[in-house]
Amino acid sequence: MPRYRLIVEYDGTPYVGWQWQDNGRAVQQAVEEAIAACTNERMRVQCAGRTDAGVHATHQVVHVDLARDWRADRLRDAVNAHLKLQGDTVAVVAADAVDEAFDARHSAIRRHYLYRILNRRPQPALERNRVWHVPRQLDAPAMHEAAQRLVGKHDFTTFRAADCQAASPLRTLERLDVERTGDEIRIFAAARSFLHHQVRSMAGTLELVGAGKWTPDDVTDALEARQRARCGTMAPACGLYLIGVDYP
Amino acid sequence: MPRYRLIVEYDGTPYVGWQWQDNGRAVQQAVEEAIAACTNERMRVQCAGRTDAGVHATHQVVHVDLARDWRADRLRDAVNAHLKLQGDTVAVVAADAVDEAFDARHSAIRRHYLYRILNRRPQPALERNRVWHVPRQLDAPAMHEAAQRLVGKHDFTTFRAADCQAASPLRTLERLDVERTGDEIRIFAAARSFLHHQVRSMAGTLELVGAGKWTPDDVTDALEARQRARCGTMAPACGLYLIGVDYP
Repeated sequence: MPRYRLIVEYDGTPYVGWQWQDNGRAVQQAVEEAIAACTNERMRVQCAGRTDAGVHATHQVVHVDLARDWRADRLRDAVNAHLKLQGDTVAVVAADAVDEAFDARHSAIRRHYLYRILNRRPQPALERNRVWHVPRQLDAPAMHEAAQRLVGKHDFTTFRAADCQAASPLRTLERLDVERTGDEIRIFAAARSFLHHQVRSMAGTLELVGAGKWTPDDVTDALEARQRARCGTMAPACGLYLIGVDYP
Repeated sequence: MPRYRLIVEYDGTPYVGWQWQDNGRAVQQAVEEAIAACTNERMRVQCAGRTDAGVHATHQVVHVDLARDWRADRLRDAVNAHLKLQGDTVAVVAADAVDEAFDARHSAIRRHYLYRILNRRPQPALERNRVWHVPRQLDAPAMHEAAQRLVGKHDFTTFRAADCQAASPLRTLERLDVERTGDEIRIFAAARSFLHHQVRSMAGTLELVGAGKWTPDDVTDALEARQRARCGTMAPACGLYLIGVDYP
Protein backbone atom coordinates (compact mmCIF):
# COMPACT_ATOMS: atom_id res chain seq x y z
CA MET A 1 0.00 0.00 0.00
CA PRO A 2 1.36 3.43 -0.84
CA ARG A 3 2.17 5.55 2.20
CA TYR A 4 1.68 9.30 2.39
CA ARG A 5 3.14 11.87 4.73
CA LEU A 6 0.98 14.87 5.54
CA ILE A 7 2.00 18.06 7.29
CA VAL A 8 -1.03 19.26 9.23
CA GLU A 9 -1.81 22.66 10.72
CA TYR A 10 -4.62 23.18 13.21
CA ASP A 11 -6.23 25.53 15.64
CA GLY A 12 -6.76 23.12 18.52
CA THR A 13 -9.34 25.28 20.32
CA PRO A 14 -12.49 23.40 19.26
CA TYR A 15 -11.02 19.90 19.58
CA VAL A 16 -10.66 17.39 22.41
CA GLY A 17 -7.05 16.93 21.29
CA TRP A 18 -5.33 14.96 18.55
CA GLN A 19 -6.60 11.56 19.55
CA TRP A 20 -10.14 10.17 19.18
CA GLN A 21 -12.19 10.63 22.35
CA ASP A 22 -15.75 9.88 23.35
CA ASN A 23 -16.43 13.40 24.55
CA GLY A 24 -15.98 15.47 21.42
CA ARG A 25 -14.37 15.93 18.05
CA ALA A 26 -10.66 15.11 17.71
CA VAL A 27 -8.20 16.49 15.15
CA GLN A 28 -7.39 12.89 14.17
CA GLN A 29 -11.08 12.30 13.57
CA ALA A 30 -11.32 15.37 11.32
CA VAL A 31 -8.33 14.20 9.29
CA GLU A 32 -9.45 10.58 9.04
CA GLU A 33 -12.99 11.54 8.08
CA ALA A 34 -11.70 13.88 5.39
CA ILE A 35 -9.42 11.16 4.00
CA ALA A 36 -12.30 8.68 4.05
CA ALA A 37 -14.59 11.12 2.26
CA CYS A 38 -12.03 11.60 -0.52
CA THR A 39 -10.68 8.07 -0.89
CA ASN A 40 -13.50 5.84 0.35
CA GLU A 41 -10.91 4.28 2.61
CA ARG A 42 -11.35 4.50 6.33
CA MET A 43 -7.73 4.38 7.47
CA ARG A 44 -5.98 5.24 10.69
CA VAL A 45 -3.43 8.04 10.57
CA GLN A 46 -0.38 7.95 12.80
CA CYS A 47 0.97 11.25 14.12
CA ALA A 48 4.37 12.40 15.37
CA GLY A 49 3.07 14.12 18.50
CA ARG A 50 -0.30 13.60 20.15
CA THR A 51 -1.42 17.04 21.29
CA ASP A 52 -3.90 17.69 24.09
CA ALA A 53 -7.21 19.52 23.92
CA GLY A 54 -6.68 23.16 22.94
CA VAL A 55 -3.08 22.69 21.81
CA HIS A 56 -2.26 23.94 18.31
CA ALA A 57 0.06 22.80 15.54
CA THR A 58 1.68 24.57 12.65
CA HIS A 59 3.56 21.43 11.68
CA GLN A 60 2.11 18.15 12.89
CA VAL A 61 3.39 15.22 10.82
CA VAL A 62 1.25 12.18 10.09
CA HIS A 63 1.42 9.16 7.82
CA VAL A 64 -1.39 7.14 6.31
CA ASP A 65 -1.54 4.07 4.06
CA LEU A 66 -3.99 4.05 1.19
CA ALA A 67 -4.87 1.23 -1.20
CA ARG A 68 -4.97 3.53 -4.21
CA ASP A 69 -2.14 5.57 -5.66
CA TRP A 70 -2.73 9.29 -5.43
CA ARG A 71 -0.90 12.28 -6.77
CA ALA A 72 0.15 13.77 -3.44
CA ASP A 73 -0.96 17.32 -4.30
CA ARG A 74 -4.38 16.01 -5.41
CA LEU A 75 -4.75 14.16 -2.14
CA ARG A 76 -3.81 17.31 -0.21
CA ASP A 77 -6.34 19.42 -2.12
CA ALA A 78 -9.14 16.85 -1.81
CA VAL A 79 -8.63 16.41 1.92
CA ASN A 80 -8.48 20.19 2.41
CA ALA A 81 -11.69 20.70 0.46
CA HIS A 82 -13.46 18.28 2.77
CA LEU A 83 -11.96 19.80 5.93
CA LYS A 84 -13.11 23.23 4.80
CA LEU A 85 -16.60 21.94 3.99
CA GLN A 86 -16.87 20.46 7.47
CA GLY A 87 -15.81 23.74 9.05
CA ASP A 88 -12.76 22.14 10.62
CA THR A 89 -9.91 24.45 11.65
CA VAL A 90 -7.48 21.91 10.22
CA ALA A 91 -5.51 22.07 6.97
CA VAL A 92 -3.03 19.81 5.22
CA VAL A 93 -0.22 22.19 4.30
CA ALA A 94 1.84 19.59 2.40
CA ALA A 95 1.59 15.96 1.28
CA ASP A 96 4.04 13.59 -0.32
CA ALA A 97 4.43 9.90 -1.04
CA VAL A 98 6.97 8.25 1.25
CA ASP A 99 8.67 4.92 1.60
CA GLU A 100 6.89 2.44 3.87
CA ALA A 101 9.90 2.60 6.18
CA PHE A 102 8.80 6.11 7.13
CA ASP A 103 6.79 6.23 10.33
CA ALA A 104 5.59 9.65 11.48
CA ARG A 105 5.93 8.68 15.12
CA HIS A 106 8.78 6.20 15.31
CA SER A 107 11.08 7.70 12.68
CA ALA A 108 11.00 11.13 14.32
CA ILE A 109 14.28 12.12 15.94
CA ARG A 110 13.24 15.50 17.33
CA ARG A 111 10.04 17.38 18.20
CA HIS A 112 9.89 21.18 18.37
CA TYR A 113 7.34 23.01 20.48
CA LEU A 114 6.66 26.70 20.98
CA TYR A 115 4.93 28.08 24.04
CA ARG A 116 3.55 31.62 23.69
CA ILE A 117 2.85 33.96 26.63
CA LEU A 118 1.18 37.34 26.13
CA ASN A 119 2.74 39.40 28.91
CA ARG A 120 0.69 42.57 29.33
CA ARG A 121 -2.12 43.66 31.59
CA PRO A 122 -4.90 43.82 28.98
CA GLN A 123 -6.23 40.44 27.90
CA PRO A 124 -5.68 39.30 24.31
CA ALA A 125 -8.38 40.19 21.79
CA LEU A 126 -6.97 39.01 18.47
CA GLU A 127 -4.85 36.29 20.10
CA ARG A 128 -7.49 34.87 22.41
CA ASN A 129 -7.08 31.09 22.72
CA ARG A 130 -3.70 31.46 21.00
CA VAL A 131 -1.55 32.57 23.92
CA TRP A 132 -1.38 32.24 27.69
CA HIS A 133 -2.28 35.64 29.09
CA VAL A 134 0.00 36.55 32.02
CA PRO A 135 -0.76 40.09 33.27
CA ARG A 136 2.09 40.36 35.78
CA GLN A 137 5.43 41.52 34.43
CA LEU A 138 7.80 38.62 33.71
CA ASP A 139 11.59 38.70 33.59
CA ALA A 140 12.39 36.77 30.41
CA PRO A 141 16.17 36.62 30.90
CA ALA A 142 15.62 35.09 34.36
CA MET A 143 13.26 32.55 32.81
CA HIS A 144 15.88 31.71 30.19
CA GLU A 145 18.55 31.26 32.83
CA ALA A 146 16.33 28.94 34.85
CA ALA A 147 15.35 27.03 31.71
CA GLN A 148 18.99 26.01 31.21
CA ARG A 149 18.76 24.02 34.46
CA LEU A 150 16.34 21.70 32.66
CA VAL A 151 18.36 21.20 29.48
CA GLY A 152 20.11 17.83 29.23
CA LYS A 153 19.26 14.27 30.25
CA HIS A 154 17.15 14.16 33.41
CA ASP A 155 14.44 12.28 35.22
CA PHE A 156 11.50 14.63 34.48
CA THR A 157 9.03 13.05 36.92
CA THR A 158 8.34 16.49 38.40
CA PHE A 159 7.36 17.79 34.98
CA ARG A 160 5.10 15.04 33.71
CA ALA A 161 1.41 14.40 34.14
CA ALA A 162 0.38 11.97 36.84
CA ASP A 163 -1.28 9.87 34.13
CA CYS A 164 1.71 9.93 31.76
CA GLN A 165 1.97 6.53 30.09
CA ALA A 166 5.67 6.67 29.17
CA ALA A 167 7.69 3.73 30.49
CA SER A 168 10.54 5.96 31.64
CA PRO A 169 10.60 9.51 33.02
CA LEU A 170 14.08 10.00 31.54
CA ARG A 171 14.24 12.43 28.66
CA THR A 172 16.98 14.48 27.03
CA LEU A 173 15.87 18.07 26.63
CA GLU A 174 17.96 19.50 23.80
CA ARG A 175 16.75 23.07 23.90
CA LEU A 176 14.68 25.30 26.16
CA ASP A 177 15.09 28.94 25.12
CA VAL A 178 13.06 31.88 26.40
CA GLU A 179 12.88 35.03 24.28
CA ARG A 180 10.89 38.24 24.58
CA THR A 181 9.54 40.10 21.55
CA GLY A 182 7.56 43.13 22.68
CA ASP A 183 4.65 41.92 24.82
CA GLU A 184 5.20 38.31 23.88
CA ILE A 185 7.43 35.75 25.57
CA ARG A 186 8.26 32.69 23.50
CA ILE A 187 9.58 29.46 24.92
CA PHE A 188 11.17 27.12 22.38
CA ALA A 189 11.57 23.49 23.40
CA ALA A 190 13.19 20.65 21.46
CA ALA A 191 13.79 17.00 22.35
CA ARG A 192 13.66 13.59 20.75
CA SER A 193 10.43 13.10 22.67
CA PHE A 194 8.55 14.69 25.54
CA LEU A 195 6.57 13.32 28.46
CA HIS A 196 2.86 14.06 28.77
CA HIS A 197 2.37 17.71 29.84
CA GLN A 198 6.14 18.23 30.01
CA VAL A 199 6.31 21.45 27.99
CA ARG A 200 3.33 22.99 29.78
CA SER A 201 4.74 21.95 33.17
CA MET A 202 8.08 23.54 32.35
CA ALA A 203 6.42 26.69 30.96
CA GLY A 204 4.27 27.09 34.05
CA THR A 205 7.28 26.68 36.31
CA LEU A 206 9.34 29.16 34.31
CA GLU A 207 6.49 31.66 34.65
CA LEU A 208 7.03 31.53 38.43
CA VAL A 209 10.68 32.35 37.87
CA GLY A 210 9.72 35.22 35.57
CA ALA A 211 7.44 36.59 38.26
CA GLY A 212 10.22 36.41 40.86
CA LYS A 213 8.43 33.75 42.93
CA TRP A 214 11.01 31.06 42.16
CA THR A 215 14.77 31.23 41.64
CA PRO A 216 16.67 29.12 39.13
CA ASP A 217 17.84 27.06 42.13
CA ASP A 218 14.21 26.31 42.99
CA VAL A 219 13.84 24.87 39.49
CA THR A 220 16.86 22.65 40.02
CA ASP A 221 15.49 21.53 43.39
CA ALA A 222 12.09 20.73 41.85
CA LEU A 223 13.74 18.72 39.06
CA GLU A 224 15.90 16.79 41.51
CA ALA A 225 12.95 16.08 43.81
CA ARG A 226 11.38 13.87 41.09
CA GLN A 227 7.93 14.49 42.51
CA ARG A 228 4.98 15.74 40.49
CA ALA A 229 3.81 17.77 43.49
CA ARG A 230 6.99 19.85 43.22
CA CYS A 231 6.10 21.16 39.77
CA GLY A 232 5.40 24.91 39.83
CA THR A 233 2.16 25.25 37.91
CA MET A 234 1.02 23.87 34.59
CA ALA A 235 0.60 26.42 31.83
CA PRO A 236 -2.70 26.27 29.89
CA ALA A 237 -3.02 24.37 26.61
CA CYS A 238 -3.88 27.40 24.46
CA GLY A 239 -0.30 28.74 24.43
CA LEU A 240 1.26 25.53 23.11
CA TYR A 241 2.14 24.80 19.47
CA LEU A 242 3.77 21.78 17.84
CA ILE A 243 5.92 23.61 15.30
CA GLY A 244 8.19 20.97 13.80
CA VAL A 245 9.33 17.37 13.68
CA ASP A 246 12.77 16.27 12.47
CA TYR A 247 13.53 13.03 10.67
CA PRO A 248 16.93 11.55 9.75
CA MET B 1 -15.78 66.63 31.89
CA PRO B 2 -12.48 64.76 31.82
CA ARG B 3 -11.73 63.16 28.48
CA TYR B 4 -9.98 59.82 28.06
CA ARG B 5 -8.24 58.33 25.07
CA LEU B 6 -8.38 54.54 24.73
CA ILE B 7 -6.38 52.36 22.36
CA VAL B 8 -8.61 49.41 21.48
CA GLU B 9 -7.73 46.04 19.97
CA TYR B 10 -10.38 43.71 18.57
CA ASP B 11 -11.04 40.60 16.59
CA GLY B 12 -13.83 41.90 14.37
CA THR B 13 -15.13 38.45 13.36
CA PRO B 14 -18.18 38.28 15.66
CA TYR B 15 -19.22 41.93 15.25
CA VAL B 16 -21.37 43.83 12.78
CA GLY B 17 -18.60 46.43 12.62
CA TRP B 18 -17.51 49.31 14.79
CA GLN B 19 -20.77 51.22 14.69
CA TRP B 20 -24.05 50.35 16.43
CA GLN B 21 -26.40 48.42 14.14
CA ASP B 22 -29.81 46.85 14.54
CA ASN B 23 -28.69 43.48 13.25
CA GLY B 24 -26.07 42.42 15.76
CA ARG B 25 -23.44 43.38 18.28
CA ALA B 26 -21.06 46.22 17.41
CA VAL B 27 -17.57 46.84 18.78
CA GLN B 28 -18.70 50.31 19.82
CA GLN B 29 -21.56 48.73 21.73
CA ALA B 30 -19.17 46.36 23.54
CA VAL B 31 -16.94 49.27 24.53
CA GLU B 32 -19.79 51.59 25.57
CA GLU B 33 -21.51 48.88 27.59
CA ALA B 34 -18.26 48.05 29.36
CA ILE B 35 -17.67 51.72 30.18
CA ALA B 36 -21.24 52.06 31.42
CA ALA B 37 -20.89 48.96 33.60
CA CYS B 38 -17.77 50.40 35.24
CA THR B 39 -18.67 54.06 35.51
CA ASN B 40 -22.47 54.08 35.60
CA GLU B 41 -22.25 56.59 32.78
CA ARG B 42 -23.74 55.72 29.43
CA MET B 43 -21.53 57.76 27.15
CA ARG B 44 -20.86 57.71 23.44
CA VAL B 45 -17.33 56.93 22.36
CA GLN B 46 -15.91 58.50 19.23
CA CYS B 47 -13.45 56.47 17.14
CA ALA B 48 -10.72 57.36 14.67
CA GLY B 49 -11.77 54.87 12.01
CA ARG B 50 -15.14 53.14 11.70
CA THR B 51 -14.37 49.59 10.65
CA ASP B 52 -16.80 47.29 8.82
CA ALA B 53 -18.12 43.92 9.94
CA GLY B 54 -15.30 41.40 10.23
CA VAL B 55 -12.52 44.00 10.10
CA HIS B 56 -9.98 43.87 12.92
CA ALA B 57 -7.96 46.45 14.82
CA THR B 58 -4.73 46.28 16.74
CA HIS B 59 -4.82 50.03 17.35
CA GLN B 60 -8.21 51.71 17.12
CA VAL B 61 -8.24 55.06 18.93
CA VAL B 62 -11.33 56.36 20.71
CA HIS B 63 -12.16 59.14 23.10
CA VAL B 64 -14.86 59.34 25.71
CA ASP B 65 -15.95 61.99 28.20
CA LEU B 66 -16.77 60.95 31.74
CA ALA B 67 -18.23 62.97 34.58
CA ARG B 68 -15.95 61.41 37.15
CA ASP B 69 -12.15 61.56 37.29
CA TRP B 70 -10.52 58.18 36.84
CA ARG B 71 -6.98 56.99 37.09
CA ALA B 72 -6.50 56.00 33.48
CA ASP B 73 -4.98 52.59 34.26
CA ARG B 74 -7.87 51.81 36.62
CA LEU B 75 -10.35 52.72 33.91
CA ARG B 76 -8.51 50.49 31.43
CA ASP B 77 -8.50 47.55 33.84
CA ALA B 78 -12.14 47.97 34.84
CA VAL B 79 -13.32 48.18 31.23
CA ASN B 80 -11.21 45.16 30.30
CA ALA B 81 -12.60 43.12 33.18
CA HIS B 82 -16.10 43.78 31.91
CA LEU B 83 -15.22 43.05 28.27
CA LYS B 84 -13.70 39.75 29.34
CA LEU B 85 -16.74 38.88 31.45
CA GLN B 86 -19.01 39.51 28.47
CA GLY B 87 -16.87 37.28 26.25
CA ASP B 88 -16.09 40.16 23.92
CA THR B 89 -12.99 39.82 21.72
CA VAL B 90 -12.17 43.43 22.49
CA ALA B 91 -9.50 44.82 24.81
CA VAL B 92 -8.36 48.28 25.83
CA VAL B 93 -4.59 48.10 25.43
CA ALA B 94 -3.93 51.60 26.77
CA ALA B 95 -5.80 54.51 28.32
CA ASP B 96 -4.82 58.04 29.23
CA ALA B 97 -6.40 61.31 30.20
CA VAL B 98 -6.29 63.86 27.39
CA ASP B 99 -7.08 67.50 26.86
CA GLU B 100 -10.61 68.21 25.66
CA ALA B 101 -9.10 69.54 22.44
CA PHE B 102 -8.21 65.97 21.54
CA ASP B 103 -10.76 64.31 19.24
CA ALA B 104 -10.05 60.74 18.19
CA ARG B 105 -11.63 61.30 14.81
CA HIS B 106 -11.04 64.93 13.93
CA SER B 107 -7.57 65.34 15.39
CA ALA B 108 -6.21 62.33 13.49
CA ILE B 109 -3.79 63.24 10.73
CA ARG B 110 -3.07 59.75 9.41
CA ARG B 111 -4.65 56.28 9.51
CA HIS B 112 -2.63 53.11 8.94
CA TYR B 113 -4.18 49.90 7.66
CA LEU B 114 -2.71 46.48 7.00
CA TYR B 115 -4.27 44.02 4.59
CA ARG B 116 -3.13 40.40 4.99
CA ILE B 117 -3.31 37.77 2.24
CA LEU B 118 -2.42 34.12 2.89
CA ASN B 119 -1.05 33.06 -0.48
CA ARG B 120 -0.87 29.26 -0.52
CA ARG B 121 -3.10 26.48 -1.79
CA PRO B 122 -4.15 25.06 1.60
CA GLN B 123 -6.70 27.15 3.46
CA PRO B 124 -5.71 28.78 6.74
CA ALA B 125 -6.32 26.80 9.91
CA LEU B 126 -4.79 28.95 12.65
CA GLU B 127 -5.36 32.19 10.71
CA ARG B 128 -8.95 31.54 9.64
CA ASN B 129 -10.94 34.81 9.67
CA ARG B 130 -7.62 36.66 10.04
CA VAL B 131 -6.41 36.66 6.43
CA TRP B 132 -7.79 36.59 2.90
CA HIS B 133 -6.98 33.16 1.53
CA VAL B 134 -5.80 33.39 -2.11
CA PRO B 135 -4.75 29.95 -3.40
CA ARG B 136 -3.36 31.10 -6.75
CA GLN B 137 0.25 32.24 -6.79
CA LEU B 138 0.57 36.02 -6.60
CA ASP B 139 3.45 38.17 -7.83
CA ALA B 140 4.03 40.56 -4.91
CA PRO B 141 6.58 42.81 -6.69
CA ALA B 142 4.09 43.33 -9.54
CA MET B 143 1.42 44.20 -6.96
CA HIS B 144 3.77 46.69 -5.34
CA GLU B 145 4.57 48.29 -8.67
CA ALA B 146 0.88 48.66 -9.53
CA ALA B 147 0.17 50.00 -6.04
CA GLN B 148 2.41 52.98 -6.71
CA ARG B 149 -0.04 54.08 -9.42
CA LEU B 150 -2.54 54.76 -6.63
CA VAL B 151 -0.22 56.71 -4.33
CA GLY B 152 -0.78 60.47 -4.31
CA LYS B 153 -3.84 62.72 -4.55
CA HIS B 154 -6.56 61.24 -6.74
CA ASP B 155 -10.29 60.98 -7.26
CA PHE B 156 -10.83 57.47 -5.83
CA THR B 157 -14.43 57.04 -7.05
CA THR B 158 -13.46 53.68 -8.59
CA PHE B 159 -12.22 52.48 -5.21
CA ARG B 160 -15.04 53.55 -2.92
CA ALA B 161 -18.30 51.87 -1.97
CA ALA B 162 -21.40 52.97 -3.85
CA ASP B 163 -22.89 53.98 -0.48
CA CYS B 164 -19.82 55.95 0.65
CA GLN B 165 -21.01 59.05 2.50
CA ALA B 166 -17.87 61.15 2.06
CA ALA B 167 -18.54 64.55 0.49
CA SER B 168 -15.57 64.27 -1.84
CA PRO B 169 -13.94 61.27 -3.56
CA LEU B 170 -10.58 63.05 -3.45
CA ARG B 171 -8.05 61.50 -1.11
CA THR B 172 -4.28 61.62 -0.77
CA LEU B 173 -2.88 58.12 -0.45
CA GLU B 174 0.47 58.49 1.28
CA ARG B 175 1.61 54.91 1.21
CA LEU B 176 0.59 51.63 -0.44
CA ASP B 177 3.34 49.06 -0.04
CA VAL B 178 3.12 45.38 -0.87
CA GLU B 179 5.54 42.97 0.80
CA ARG B 180 5.82 39.20 0.83
CA THR B 181 6.96 37.26 3.91
CA GLY B 182 6.84 33.53 3.20
CA ASP B 183 3.24 32.57 2.34
CA GLU B 184 1.90 35.93 3.45
CA ILE B 185 1.48 39.09 1.42
CA ARG B 186 1.06 42.28 3.41
CA ILE B 187 -0.33 45.49 2.01
CA PHE B 188 0.37 48.59 4.09
CA ALA B 189 -1.80 51.64 3.41
CA ALA B 190 -1.57 55.09 4.98
CA ALA B 191 -3.55 58.28 4.37
CA ARG B 192 -5.05 61.15 6.31
CA SER B 193 -8.38 59.45 5.70
CA PHE B 194 -9.85 56.75 3.50
CA LEU B 195 -13.13 56.38 1.63
CA HIS B 196 -15.55 53.60 2.55
CA HIS B 197 -14.17 50.24 1.30
CA GLN B 198 -11.15 51.98 -0.21
CA VAL B 199 -8.45 49.70 1.21
CA ARG B 200 -10.39 46.53 0.41
CA SER B 201 -11.14 47.79 -3.11
CA MET B 202 -7.46 48.54 -3.71
CA ALA B 203 -6.37 45.20 -2.20
CA GLY B 204 -8.82 43.26 -4.38
CA THR B 205 -7.62 45.09 -7.47
CA LEU B 206 -3.96 44.49 -6.62
CA GLU B 207 -4.74 40.78 -6.24
CA LEU B 208 -5.74 40.77 -9.92
CA VAL B 209 -2.37 42.28 -10.76
CA GLY B 210 -0.61 39.68 -8.64
CA ALA B 211 -2.44 36.92 -10.50
CA GLY B 212 -1.39 38.38 -13.86
CA LYS B 213 -4.97 39.28 -14.86
CA TRP B 214 -4.36 43.01 -14.73
CA THR B 215 -1.32 45.12 -15.56
CA PRO B 216 -0.26 48.22 -13.65
CA ASP B 217 -1.65 50.21 -16.61
CA ASP B 218 -5.04 48.60 -16.04
CA VAL B 219 -4.94 49.95 -12.50
CA THR B 220 -4.17 53.45 -13.79
CA ASP B 221 -7.00 53.16 -16.30
CA ALA B 222 -9.43 52.03 -13.61
CA LEU B 223 -8.41 54.93 -11.36
CA GLU B 224 -8.78 57.46 -14.15
CA ALA B 225 -12.17 56.08 -15.18
CA ARG B 226 -13.65 57.24 -11.85
CA GLN B 227 -16.35 54.60 -12.04
CA ARG B 228 -17.11 52.12 -9.27
CA ALA B 229 -17.84 49.45 -11.89
CA ARG B 230 -14.22 49.64 -13.01
CA CYS B 231 -12.89 48.47 -9.65
CA GLY B 232 -11.27 45.03 -9.88
CA THR B 233 -12.77 43.09 -7.01
CA MET B 234 -13.25 43.92 -3.37
CA ALA B 235 -11.14 41.94 -0.94
CA PRO B 236 -12.98 40.38 2.03
CA ALA B 237 -13.17 42.10 5.40
CA CYS B 238 -11.31 39.42 7.35
CA GLY B 239 -7.88 40.41 5.97
CA LEU B 240 -8.12 44.06 7.04
CA TYR B 241 -6.62 45.58 10.21
CA LEU B 242 -6.59 49.14 11.50
CA ILE B 243 -3.06 49.21 12.90
CA GLY B 244 -2.40 52.82 13.80
CA VAL B 245 -3.59 56.40 13.94
CA ASP B 246 -1.28 59.41 14.00
CA TYR B 247 -1.96 62.68 15.79
CA PRO B 248 -0.01 65.95 15.63
